[in-house]
Amino acid sequence: MLEQLKEKVLQANLRLQSSGLVILTWGNVSEIDEETKLVAIKPSGVPYENMTAKDIVIVNLEGDIIEGNLRPSSDLPTHLQLYKRYPTIKGICHTHSKWATIFSQANKSIEILGTTHADYFHGDIPVTRILSEQEAREAYELNTGNVIIEKIDKKDPLEIPAILCGGHGPFTFGTSGEKAVENAIVLEFVAEMAYYTRNLNNQNDLFKTYIGDIHYYRKHGKNAYYGQVKK
Amino acid sequence: MLEQLKEKVLQANLRLQSSGLVILTWGNVSEIDEETKLVAIKPSGVPYENMTAKDIVIVNLEGDIIEGNLRPSSDLPTHLQLYKRYPTIKGICHTHSKWATIFSQANKSIEILGTTHADYFHGDIPVTRILSEQEAREAYELNTGNVIIEKIDKKDPLEIPAILCGGHGPFTFGTSGEKAVENAIVLEFVAEMAYYTRNLNNQNDLFKTYIGDIHYYRKHGKNAYYGQVKK
Amino acid sequence: MLEQLKEKVLQANLRLQSSGLVILTWGNVSEIDEETKLVAIKPSGVPYENMTAKDIVIVNLEGDIIEGNLRPSSDLPTHLQLYKRYPTIKGICHTHSKWATIFSQANKSIEILGTTHADYFHGDIPVTRILSEQEAREAYELNTGNVIIEKIDKKDPLEIPAILCGGHGPFTFGTSGEKAVENAIVLEFVAEMAYYTRNLNNQNDLFKTYIGDIHYYRKHGKNAYYGQVKK
Amino acid sequence: MLEQLKEKVLQANLRLQSSGLVILTWGNVSEIDEETKLVAIKPSGVPYENMTAKDIVIVNLEGDIIEGNLRPSSDLPTHLQLYKRYPTIKGICHTHSKWATIFSQANKSIEILGTTHADYFHGDIPVTRILSEQEAREAYELNTGNVIIEKIDKKDPLEIPAILCGGHGPFTFGTSGEKAVENAIVLEFVAEMAYYTRNLNNQNDLFKTYIGDIHYYRKHGKNAYYGQVKK
Repeated sequence: MLEQLKEKVLQANLRLQSSGLVILTWGNVSEIDEETKLVAIKPSGVPYENMTAKDIVIVNLEGDIIEGNLRPSSDLPTHLQLYKRYPTIKGICHTHSKWATIFSQANKSIEILGTTHADYFHGDIPVTRILSEQEAREAYELNTGNVIIEKIDKKDPLEIPAILCGGHGPFTFGTSGEKAVENAIVLEFVAEMAYYTRNLNNQNDLFKTYIGDIHYYRKHGKNAYYGQVKK
Repeated sequence: MLEQLKEKVLQANLRLQSSGLVILTWGNVSEIDEETKLVAIKPSGVPYENMTAKDIVIVNLEGDIIEGNLRPSSDLPTHLQLYKRYPTIKGICHTHSKWATIFSQANKSIEILGTTHADYFHGDIPVTRILSEQEAREAYELNTGNVIIEKIDKKDPLEIPAILCGGHGPFTFGTSGEKAVENAIVLEFVAEMAYYTRNLNNQNDLFKTYIGDIHYYRKHGKNAYYGQVKK
Repeated sequence: MLEQLKEKVLQANLRLQSSGLVILTWGNVSEIDEETKLVAIKPSGVPYENMTAKDIVIVNLEGDIIEGNLRPSSDLPTHLQLYKRYPTIKGICHTHSKWATIFSQANKSIEILGTTHADYFHGDIPVTRILSEQEAREAYELNTGNVIIEKIDKKDPLEIPAILCGGHGPFTFGTSGEKAVENAIVLEFVAEMAYYTRNLNNQNDLFKTYIGDIHYYRKHGKNAYYGQVKK
Repeated sequence: MLEQLKEKVLQANLRLQSSGLVILTWGNVSEIDEETKLVAIKPSGVPYENMTAKDIVIVNLEGDIIEGNLRPSSDLPTHLQLYKRYPTIKGICHTHSKWATIFSQANKSIEILGTTHADYFHGDIPVTRILSEQEAREAYELNTGNVIIEKIDKKDPLEIPAILCGGHGPFTFGTSGEKAVENAIVLEFVAEMAYYTRNLNNQNDLFKTYIGDIHYYRKHGKNAYYGQVKK
């Protein structure tokens, strides 16, 4: 079932690796099927080299395995919390990519400092608090989802489709698994640039909000003119 | 029409990607045909992987599409302003390459600190001011061209064939699209070295102007002796 | 003899190179055969490009060559000290990988600052003291093993399967040569992230021990649920 | 003539590129033929992609072209000064590799801080003074050789087979062009590590001279035991 979705999720996971965002068996991408509300996700700890669409696991929003012979990614409960809370999220990507993880470990948000950032993220990329000992011991992955939700709150997560988990690493979102991976690629790039930009110049108000708005909306607004007309 | 130019501009754009200066669909290269004053430029938001010469868009200096089925790069108005103002510019390249963008975001020029820089750029690489809100809202890309012109002013842009747009990223110039890409490659390299050189030694007058002159002119002066005799 | 072990050790050494942890002929991996207590190790100073299983040298725990036409790695005495002292170590890997070596040269341990580190190393990665002149002149490689043992002491080296030798570089351990290489890959990654994390935020108690425990044990404890069920 | 030497010098130059030490047409390697005292060197400004042994230029120690249709590297006079002054030098390599150039631009020597450095360079890697305006205008490349000689003086250049030219970049030496390239690869690696080591720990006496001696002589002394027995 959902053969096309499994193939898409496989390709999104493979792109994670070819983009250099993950090493070893790290990282995972999922995507939700709008109609059935079933989620396709990478299996846990399986090498990318031999992964096929048959290895992708199908689960429902309660986390029951509907199809597949392998265990789903251990971060599954985080993905499911987000799908249940935010209907605009159709794909989720989790990595330990270097610079996004550095900011996560430092418990620092990634400031918007230029148009590269503004083209994809409409503001600073926030960082969650670290889980309390009780939250961590009771349900680590589920509560990771909950502190993300606590931070995003009522905003549309696709306006700033990335978040850093304090002490851990980033999750990114999108209208598909592939778009979530694309946002993870850009997140990594803008995180590194933010680090060095601030080392070069630490003055206030380095960037202008109105420039950020223009860049964001020329790609994402209803009058967007970047790219080709969608057929 | 202009089949040869379209092929050259395609190759210059592809080199942008193979050199690691761009990710995803970022960046664009154009070149002007001296005789017809028509400009060939990359289409907007199209993946490099499948791009062919047929996708390259031909426009006139007013920005009207003369040939091509795709939208031209959204940065086209910036390119056209520069072609109209500076007749020595035959090719233009725009990227968000990491280190040149870091200096752009920090609103810092790239100081000449060694012979690698002097071999290609006859002095510091300047940074433009950020557009005012009115300039940005009225005509963002066109006014990006205008603040570049405000900075270069009456100098020959080929003496220092690169400029940083504050809060945004670099544009480079050349006697062709390919030469503009080559200057973008070197710009990225000298930007990174300038950052670390200054971290290692922040004293004044680290480099000598007369060494810079000798290196620049042994490659670019009328008595240049670097490279092979042009046939 | 031990053809399978030699092939495994060859592959582990080749992975060292393909992972970018070593350049030229640097680095070495060994593995011990539990039954015979013989050790298979990379030959000294041989290019990776042409290395075959026949080049892998078999030695006993006293360092006598049992099979092979080439000299074993000059770091062999360090490996043997560790195999003799710690029976849980089945594979050892030595590199001069960039970031682990930077911390070694700085005589600084690598602090646990996030879950990426915690997934593989159950605490800070320690650094040994530098050998005294007498220790260094008498038996440099053997005493390198001894200062490592002095540091690990009675702890199980597989709990934190990496150590930095002050002024020199890292050794990593594992249940096989391949696992030791995997730990070397992760060590390099977390070393770099620790450097930049501390540059971004130097406050105390950045990371929580209970988060580290949860991440370590979800992969390594008896109730581990990361990855697939071992058959 | 000297077909074998030209092939060796070609391969050494190509390795320069495959090692990532140079971009575009940058860098050059030469080697001297002991019998005839003729020098084979890379042609100036020729792309590596199409270079063949026929493009390698043969010159005598006065710089006269003995064989070849192309101009030799514009840095030739620097190479010749060094061959004339130091008979132990058989190969020379010049790059603008990133980290060695950063130290050159900062006019800082590269301190010996670990065994990776000690395995190849028996002490700190020195930096020359910048040429005076008169020296630079009269004979830039020849006087570059002279300030290198001023710095090395009566020492054997093969003990520390690398030098940084202030404001410019590194030259490395060896018993062949290939060995000079190998030293350039290691120079780049230890330069980067020195930068970050000093950022992590700036205390005096980080490294011990006796450790450096042991590492250097286990590879280079008459009782060297690293690597295989030369046949």
